[in-house]
Amino acid sequence: MSTESWKTAITRIEPNKIIIHGYRLEDLMGKVTYPQMIYLLIKGELPPVNTGKMIDAILVSSVDHGVTPPSCQAAITVATTGAALNASIASGILAINEFHGGAIEKGMGILQAAVELVKKENLSADEAAGRTVKSYLDRKQKIMGYGHRFHTNDPRTRRLFELAGEYGFNGPYLRMSQAIEKALHASTGKNLPINVDGAIAAVLCELNIPAELANAFFIMARLPGLIAHIYEEKTRYKPMRQINFAQAEYDGPDERNP
Amino acid sequence: MSTESWKTAITRIEPNKIIIHGYRLEDLMGKVTYPQMIYLLIKGELPPVNTGKMIDAILVSSVDHGVTPPSCQAAITVATTGAALNASIASGILAINEFHGGAIEKGMGILQAAVELVKKENLSADEAAGRTVKSYLDRKQKIMGYGHRFHTNDPRTRRLFELAGEYGFNGPYLRMSQAIEKALHASTGKNLPINVDGAIAAVLCELNIPAELANAFFIMARLPGLIAHIYEEKTRYKPMRQINFAQAEYDGPDERNP
Amino acid sequence: MSTESWKTAITRIEPNKIIIHGYRLEDLMGKVTYPQMIYLLIKGELPPVNTGKMIDAILVSSVDHGVTPPSCQAAITVATTGAALNASIASGILAINEFHGGAIEKGMGILQAAVELVKKENLSADEAAGRTVKSYLDRKQKIMGYGHRFHTNDPRTRRLFELAGEYGFNGPYLRMSQAIEKALHASTGKNLPINVDGAIAAVLCELNIPAELANAFFIMARLPGLIAHIYEEKTRYKPMRQINFAQAEYDGPDERNP
Amino acid sequence: MSTESWKTAITRIEPNKIIIHGYRLEDLMGKVTYPQMIYLLIKGELPPVNTGKMIDAILVSSVDHGVTPPSCQAAITVATTGAALNASIASGILAINEFHGGAIEKGMGILQAAVELVKKENLSADEAAGRTVKSYLDRKQKIMGYGHRFHTNDPRTRRLFELAGEYGFNGPYLRMSQAIEKALHASTGKNLPINVDGAIAAVLCELNIPAELANAFFIMARLPGLIAHIYEEKTRYKPMRQINFAQAEYDGPDERNP
Repeated sequence: MSTESWKTAITRIEPNKIIIHGYRLEDLMGKVTYPQMIYLLIKGELPPVNTGKMIDAILVSSVDHGVTPPSCQAAITVATTGAALNASIASGILAINEFHGGAIEKGMGILQAAVELVKKENLSADEAAGRTVKSYLDRKQKIMGYGHRFHTNDPRTRRLFELAGEYGFNGPYLRMSQAIEKALHASTGKNLPINVDGAIAAVLCELNIPAELANAFFIMARLPGLIAHIYEEKTRYKPMRQINFAQAEYDGPDERNP
Repeated sequence: MSTESWKTAITRIEPNKIIIHGYRLEDLMGKVTYPQMIYLLIKGELPPVNTGKMIDAILVSSVDHGVTPPSCQAAITVATTGAALNASIASGILAINEFHGGAIEKGMGILQAAVELVKKENLSADEAAGRTVKSYLDRKQKIMGYGHRFHTNDPRTRRLFELAGEYGFNGPYLRMSQAIEKALHASTGKNLPINVDGAIAAVLCELNIPAELANAFFIMARLPGLIAHIYEEKTRYKPMRQINFAQAEYDGPDERNP
Repeated sequence: MSTESWKTAITRIEPNKIIIHGYRLEDLMGKVTYPQMIYLLIKGELPPVNTGKMIDAILVSSVDHGVTPPSCQAAITVATTGAALNASIASGILAINEFHGGAIEKGMGILQAAVELVKKENLSADEAAGRTVKSYLDRKQKIMGYGHRFHTNDPRTRRLFELAGEYGFNGPYLRMSQAIEKALHASTGKNLPINVDGAIAAVLCELNIPAELANAFFIMARLPGLIAHIYEEKTRYKPMRQINFAQAEYDGPDERNP
Repeated sequence: MSTESWKTAITRIEPNKIIIHGYRLEDLMGKVTYPQMIYLLIKGELPPVNTGKMIDAILVSSVDHGVTPPSCQAAITVATTGAALNASIASGILAINEFHGGAIEKGMGILQAAVELVKKENLSADEAAGRTVKSYLDRKQKIMGYGHRFHTNDPRTRRLFELAGEYGFNGPYLRMSQAIEKALHASTGKNLPINVDGAIAAVLCELNIPAELANAFFIMARLPGLIAHIYEEKTRYKPMRQINFAQAEYDGPDERNP
């Protein structure tokens, strides 16, 4: 085995010093938010306050979706066997893949290619969107980030775009995602609105996050939701119960305003 | 298999409605922070702004510790084999257990018992701390949350306590953790300062978080760090390299101010 | 990080040499069976042929239980999201815990204590069994390894005991497990036959396997079953289907003789 | 969520009946070996005795490789934190991927394509091997299954091929793997002998196992090795030790004959 040294650019550890990308951790605490830290860790630079707010809104938008997604079901199924909290979480995270959460990464790829097309071929957003949609439909491929199995008009999408405008991220990727929605409707006649994955994809493009980390954002967002469901399972139910996820009924507080 | 219905109090999912503990998700986005959402999901109620800030500071305090902890080493070791991002994360999370991160839960138990002692036996904090330390030392058990293998004077502890004062959480658990530090020094003659686990334990007690979820906070905190190291491994190094963690050298930016 | 050397007694790796507990791997291939290798790896010595046959029968006895156990459900739930085979397996294994598979370890503890009682107090097996059952019932604790949620007369138990007799493992632990079954019936009036976990517990005691490795045997046994279900999911169904495990119907071959 | 029924062809569970691909489990115990069961579960039919022996030899060949592979390192790294056995195993399995174990699947693809070429173009094995090697070298791609970072003349390969001959599996895929070895040597001048991954790939092709399950065989093979290392870690060492895998020294029995 090699005894060669190797480099890491993230964190320097010395006695009584933890320095992340050059910043002492105690100088960051109370000064920058956790969402800003996420950006710092990934991109190596501290982002402006609004970038932190935008990431915060992304995390909040995907924090939970009840017991319907496979990640939650896998976590609860493992929790009921007496698994430790971390093992139950790990199982839930193992369920976040190409077909569950993965639409964000694919959506980012589509938007990046379409915006690239605008620049390269000197097209309008609508022209590039039209070509993109046509090429996908011709190959009978799904354009990820549009339509949802539960929600026909996802309230998270609307709100995320609203906040993107407010925080100053209404840029070319957001416009392209809307142009594609329009082009998709024109070509198919179907109503396939931008879903939350598509909206997050657009915003992450605006934030210049690498597409390979799209799933990381979904995992960070969903983690508190997984923890809440695992904790409920462990404190409310007996181990090894037979769980039929189609039979879950909500019995939390009635609708209220924050 | 049972076809009986069962209850969950966390999230209600209906077409175009995602309602978490009674709040529509789109009403929360941009209004409450991700750390506040963590509290809402776990405790069922929206916390005051300062609770969110306190949780934020906890998360930031433990966001990364370089390549020294086993969670990071497990994540990198899995990443180098070509594992997907989520599988590498899962492996890192599986390493957060009794002896790595687990001191927070144990520390909470010690503080809760000692504060209980104050009430029950009508003692001063110092008296309860003295009895607690004596009972641990008599049984030759370690009091978790004091001393650190790297840091003799952990800068994260100091800052976390400072912020707890600022945000209004300088309550009985913080005072007890300091009383125990003093009693420990008096009994052993050794300098065993409160470490970051001990400090987080005290603050989570102030926030009324169940001790069984201590590990959950450490996992949420450390997740962005794991992601950063996995991403570095995948983008900077060739697969299946022989990794000697003792030979890692930091080559990020020099020390700077935020 | 330490650069100290440390010891491992399992395998020596040199160029063109893989030596397991002293045996060259190529000398073992074709000469000892995989179940014998399991014993060698765990106990450090090559076992007699019949020990290998007994372990083989244990593995076969628990190789699959359809889609009813949580380990299988967790594996399938993860597989449907597009997870890699190994991630799906990992999720299934994370579901094998105290309340699923864990009865073997607990059962071993009960049998070991009861057989110890025979020696220490010079009792008959029936007397020790009676005391054991009484002490559990008095504390209202479940004696693990008896009764089953599906099977009132588990065909695997009968066959495993039959083979244990044939291979020469009908020793004190098997007899004790039967004495406890009898005592349990006498005390409760209920029919709580030894289940497959209890039978495996007895046989693993006869093989002198440490109880802490009971779960390891269940995991090894169940692995091919998990793989088969994951492979079926991936080849037979579309990703992200809504799976109701209560609605699974068998459509494999009709009953036949091996 | 769907309440539709769905089909599974693997196992039928009824009270007191566990029927795997039509066979009652108790009829299989003691009659067919665990390696035969693996085949039955995956392929749906009971294989001849020699197929079982061949699978057994594959499993034995890859049962352990000391503390050098990342799967073992990940498992030990997680075990030292106090993780449960199953969580430590899961972490090890998460490290078995494209670049660790994955050569078997890729090797199978190469052999299947080359044997297909023989049939389609009416070539000799040597001609097809030559074309295959040329096409890989032209694209500067690695032919998986040849050469090894530790072993220049892997004793497992030789023995596996010997046993394949003995058990009647010396067919077109084995011959092709040897023809490619020869062609590779002729084209590059380098000695790149078939490694154990390549040998297993050839034998799994002979057994008509789907290439997508290659990793499953490696995982089944390596599981007892992972368990042995985790158990050693938990019983021989204190938690949270700093592990330098480059400094491990074997202290098991001296070389001996089985």
